[in-house]
Amino acid sequence: MPNPTAAMLVIGDEILSGRTRDSNAHHLAGQLTERGIDLREVRFIGDEMETITVVVRELSAKYEHVFTSGGIGPTHDDITADCIAAAFDAPIDVRDDARAILSAHYEARGIEMNEARLRMARIPQGATLIDNPVSAAPGFTLKNVHVMAGVPKIFEAMLASVLPGLSGGQKLLSRSVLLNRGEGDIAQTLRDLAESEPSVAIGSYPAWSGDGYQVNVVLRGSNAAALDRAVVALKHAFPEARE
Amino acid sequence: MPNPTAAMLVIGDEILSGRTRDSNAHHLAGQLTERGIDLREVRFIGDEMETITVVVRELSAKYEHVFTSGGIGPTHDDITADCIAAAFDAPIDVRDDARAILSAHYEARGIEMNEARLRMARIPQGATLIDNPVSAAPGFTLKNVHVMAGVPKIFEAMLASVLPGLSGGQKLLSRSVLLNRGEGDIAQTLRDLAESEPSVAIGSYPAWSGDGYQVNVVLRGSNAAALDRAVVALKHAFPEARE
Repeated sequence: MPNPTAAMLVIGDEILSGRTRDSNAHHLAGQLTERGIDLREVRFIGDEMETITVVVRELSAKYEHVFTSGGIGPTHDDITADCIAAAFDAPIDVRDDARAILSAHYEARGIEMNEARLRMARIPQGATLIDNPVSAAPGFTLKNVHVMAGVPKIFEAMLASVLPGLSGGQKLLSRSVLLNRGEGDIAQTLRDLAESEPSVAIGSYPAWSGDGYQVNVVLRGSNAAALDRAVVALKHAFPEARE
Repeated sequence: MPNPTAAMLVIGDEILSGRTRDSNAHHLAGQLTERGIDLREVRFIGDEMETITVVVRELSAKYEHVFTSGGIGPTHDDITADCIAAAFDAPIDVRDDARAILSAHYEARGIEMNEARLRMARIPQGATLIDNPVSAAPGFTLKNVHVMAGVPKIFEAMLASVLPGLSGGQKLLSRSVLLNRGEGDIAQTLRDLAESEPSVAIGSYPAWSGDGYQVNVVLRGSNAAALDRAVVALKHAFPEARE
């Protein structure tokens, strides 16, 4: 069975303007690879209702899972929950379960619950809440879309509570071989290797060390024996190879 | 006149697997903002011919500029140039101008020119070369698509040679105000401010310092007077505000 597929949607003008550097995509990528879920694409888009709604619908239809980050806080530019509701024609309003979580959190801290904070209890009908151990305001899952906060600490905590509930696939195995050569010296060998071991995906990542060219060859696949054959062949072709 | 629009396409399985963390999107975002070009979306996709071709066509039709990073090296997984050619039905082959640049570079270093390295001289017909001061192998511009390397040092150098040739728009001005409050305390004020100064885009970015809640309010727009009014109003509402 092929692995489940996924896409990510990073929402926020501050990412596209260069003010903020997203780190959630990289975190999600690593976590999904760990679980054998194939991340197929990531999109960064701005705080724009129509765009978010259309893209959510598109990605939700195309992939088994969609993960979003950003736009679920209390301020006027936090429109993600409304967009998700619109994408699936789901009614949205303050929900009692979410309000109860927020009320308890604020009461314990002597913070007043106001209209802005109450906005964070707006959850589409039919959605399941995602726990937020950092600042209480929950994320949610509606259909196959997991809606999470943009602040990395909160995104990561929410993801940690979502992932155990998803079925994973076959975990990708990975081997990495370092060569002191230029990519151009090894390209033909890699091409031959890719042909003789079609189950192994071979990537090469050049770097410059102080002493000259280096290239990291990364071999990935779920067939351990094929991976092993490919690594042996590579070391045979380039005896200086270090794994 | 509205600012020119742009999209970015980050190409590479290694980004989606979490092996490599992209830094080119953030760099491009900052550079385009500097020049008054609006980055509207970023997509990360894998090394997959059909996907790259379709997405390039879509983004090229939708935005004034498309910037790509990744997939133009000498190895079998470097397929970006062929995809761009396919997207525009342009013939592609080794081009004399690109070959001459590579030959001179390798000759000077005593490196042999082989078939793999010659792949990097495959440039679609009609494209303009982009200078690569780091490792010689050129990028190229075909129609409104600027095709650049994935290695950050090379991407940044190529971008620096492309940007001066593009017309920019009105540069976005930005002011930033730090408040020692939670977002929920200021949301109503921000909403009112956004309504009374519609030319100013207001974003709020919460953080936790050791002492408690903080929020950075970022005000952006091309109208300096309106920005100034908004900052004054914000400081009036929250006297502890620091710009």
